[in-house]
Amino acid sequence: MSNTAGQIIKCRAAVAWEAGKPLVIEEVEVAPPKAGEVRLKILYTSLCHTDVYFWEAKGQTPLFPRIFGHEAGGIVESVGEGVTHLKPGDHALPVFTGECGECPHCKSEESNMCDLLRINTDRGVMIHDQESRFSIKGKPIYHFVGTSTFSEYTVVHAGCVAKINPEAPLDKVCVLSCGICTGLQHHPRLVYFLTFCLLVILFSDNSVSFSCFVGLGATINVAKPKPGSSVAVFGLGAVGLAAAEGARISGASRIIGVDLVSSRFELAKKFGVNEFVNPKDHNKPVQEVIAEMTNGGVDRSVECTGSIQAMISAFECVHDGWGVAVLVGVPSKDDAFKTHPTNFLNERTLKGTFYGNYKPRTDLPNVVEKYMRGELELEKFITHTVPFSEINKAFDLMLKGESIRCIIRMDE
Amino acid sequence: MSNTAGQIIKCRAAVAWEAGKPLVIEEVEVAPPKAGEVRLKILYTSLCHTDVYFWEAKGQTPLFPRIFGHEAGGIVESVGEGVTHLKPGDHALPVFTGECGECPHCKSEESNMCDLLRINTDRGVMIHDQESRFSIKGKPIYHFVGTSTFSEYTVVHAGCVAKINPEAPLDKVCVLSCGICTGLQHHPRLVYFLTFCLLVILFSDNSVSFSCFVGLGATINVAKPKPGSSVAVFGLGAVGLAAAEGARISGASRIIGVDLVSSRFELAKKFGVNEFVNPKDHNKPVQEVIAEMTNGGVDRSVECTGSIQAMISAFECVHDGWGVAVLVGVPSKDDAFKTHPTNFLNERTLKGTFYGNYKPRTDLPNVVEKYMRGELELEKFITHTVPFSEINKAFDLMLKGESIRCIIRMDE
Repeated sequence: MSNTAGQIIKCRAAVAWEAGKPLVIEEVEVAPPKAGEVRLKILYTSLCHTDVYFWEAKGQTPLFPRIFGHEAGGIVESVGEGVTHLKPGDHALPVFTGECGECPHCKSEESNMCDLLRINTDRGVMIHDQESRFSIKGKPIYHFVGTSTFSEYTVVHAGCVAKINPEAPLDKVCVLSCGICTGLQHHPRLVYFLTFCLLVILFSDNSVSFSCFVGLGATINVAKPKPGSSVAVFGLGAVGLAAAEGARISGASRIIGVDLVSSRFELAKKFGVNEFVNPKDHNKPVQEVIAEMTNGGVDRSVECTGSIQAMISAFECVHDGWGVAVLVGVPSKDDAFKTHPTNFLNERTLKGTFYGNYKPRTDLPNVVEKYMRGELELEKFITHTVPFSEINKAFDLMLKGESIRCIIRMDE
Repeated sequence: MSNTAGQIIKCRAAVAWEAGKPLVIEEVEVAPPKAGEVRLKILYTSLCHTDVYFWEAKGQTPLFPRIFGHEAGGIVESVGEGVTHLKPGDHALPVFTGECGECPHCKSEESNMCDLLRINTDRGVMIHDQESRFSIKGKPIYHFVGTSTFSEYTVVHAGCVAKINPEAPLDKVCVLSCGICTGLQHHPRLVYFLTFCLLVILFSDNSVSFSCFVGLGATINVAKPKPGSSVAVFGLGAVGLAAAEGARISGASRIIGVDLVSSRFELAKKFGVNEFVNPKDHNKPVQEVIAEMTNGGVDRSVECTGSIQAMISAFECVHDGWGVAVLVGVPSKDDAFKTHPTNFLNERTLKGTFYGNYKPRTDLPNVVEKYMRGELELEKFITHTVPFSEINKAFDLMLKGESIRCIIRMDE
């Protein structure tokens, strides 16, 4: 046991006191974990557009003061009653969605949408007692998606913590814990917002700024391209780059990037994209362009924009007989997916994914091993690092669209 | 070699001289098979609604005189040049769609939509030389979907012939060769017609009259329900009954039949259906009714009506996280499948099937074995038999909706 176990820990956290105002590094008190919880020492965290969105709090019921952050790597400091799969000293990734292990979704081999620990962006407290574990001079500070990693110590439900190989470099694998860009279907407001985010990215000339390893899982776990096959990736933001990386790892030989911004192709090449289509360059639907390029259609497609038209194109561009299209991008709440049912009867499959179909506790350790074996290249996604004291710089980089991922070093 | 090999065979065939007029048993001349073809002695055939449709020829370019029939069992009489997988004496099922073994679809493990031998309802001749093998006094009689089984002898492309266990009773397993009720996506006119057929069935009070083992494959090969799971079957016509039989064979514990005609539930019980929902009995969408019955949705659904609304309901009634919906029914050419993309992102899958995803030559022999082992109960589907000389009675039974399957004995 660490000598802090069972004690309140005082440490630094970046507190968002108000919507859209720079975070302030404060000394916070972090209560010990209660039953079923874990207290983590965070070593590295990174910033995702979703943090920025809830920090800006436009069109939402604001929940402040709050500690954001959901993409991180750390070490277990202590565990609460009944936690058996983790112990102090374990290296771990906190995840915004969990795996209770008991609900029908966790018991299903096919689902990762845990009933108990599925993401909830409205809740600022712990499930166990509906209270916060963070406080400043007795005043509670709200949690964010159960992770709140912009703090040197945080308390997380044990079902939201994946134990990983202690030899894995946490400053790299920390980016694997994010996948918040998808799913969230029970939060219409968030869905609406995320669409906005994604559209901004899709139609922006800036570099990508929204990274999610959900794209990796969408390709590897759901689309499952075979070696030598063809894959179309719609949207070359960070989600799409991760989807392309998944196609590269799977051994796809043709990885066709589709984006309205041609300049993105250059960066996308690093992630395995070897052909490019800009729908604006053609006077016919992009699905027809792709079908002509591929003798009838691609084997797999992954849609990472959230645009309803891109979703339809991504589905209709797969080959009859065996084509599988996977939706990742989050749509607007008023969108309708529309196609002729014959496209299904011709043996095409359409699926969607939440968090790349990864079960966080079960599957993340294996993704880490994939990185350790050199199969998955995380370094390509990490464009910047900043010390914790300069966390607001990470926000600036993201808002300017200059970073894919900016790692925040908690010890500085 | 049989002593008829290489010779013209004179035999009886039921010729449709004109649209909608009773078939006439005639003596026809059947030429020997050419390269890549097989001549079959048909022992049993049965009637499918699709035969009736093309015989009625409403709204189609009529192609007469023609020999209909596509669901049959027989014995190979002789084979043409280059045919190696069949020899005289083999027991065989002719199939309206084929498996050339060479095209990308045949080479794909995932598809059965053979490029060369995919169903073509407009062609009345053999692929090899664009000529008919049937004639009466030198005048050619057209083929139908490459099978023309309403003849004691017929010539079929070898890729459209499945060799089966010679111990299998051909008067039972002959019904396995039909699956024409699905796919046909390259024939908009047929699609349109079939929708009409299916709707007639769905909304009719008569007994089922359109049987297709595509329903079996749709469930077993595509939906793949696990033992103990729940399956909703939309439409309790013969396709739906076959889909239910597939669910029963797969070990599904809840098989929910959905139909606008409540009286169909009684018959459906024989095929494993153990719960019934009539959408007309509820004042909310049937997908909501099913979700309430099943704590969030069924594990699998199979849509066998062709109604676009039923397709949408079938998709939306499957459970998030793992639900799979399979479309079998053939839609109207103007239909649009429409749903909120969030239904996909919540990890639902939508697929369609052509001929139940069976590769005819590869998979039909195994389906026959399934019957031989007592797993698949074909007898339930066979409600009538008639001698060949009374083939028009089979048409009457079908038009009155009194039969599921009527076997026609060729030797009488």
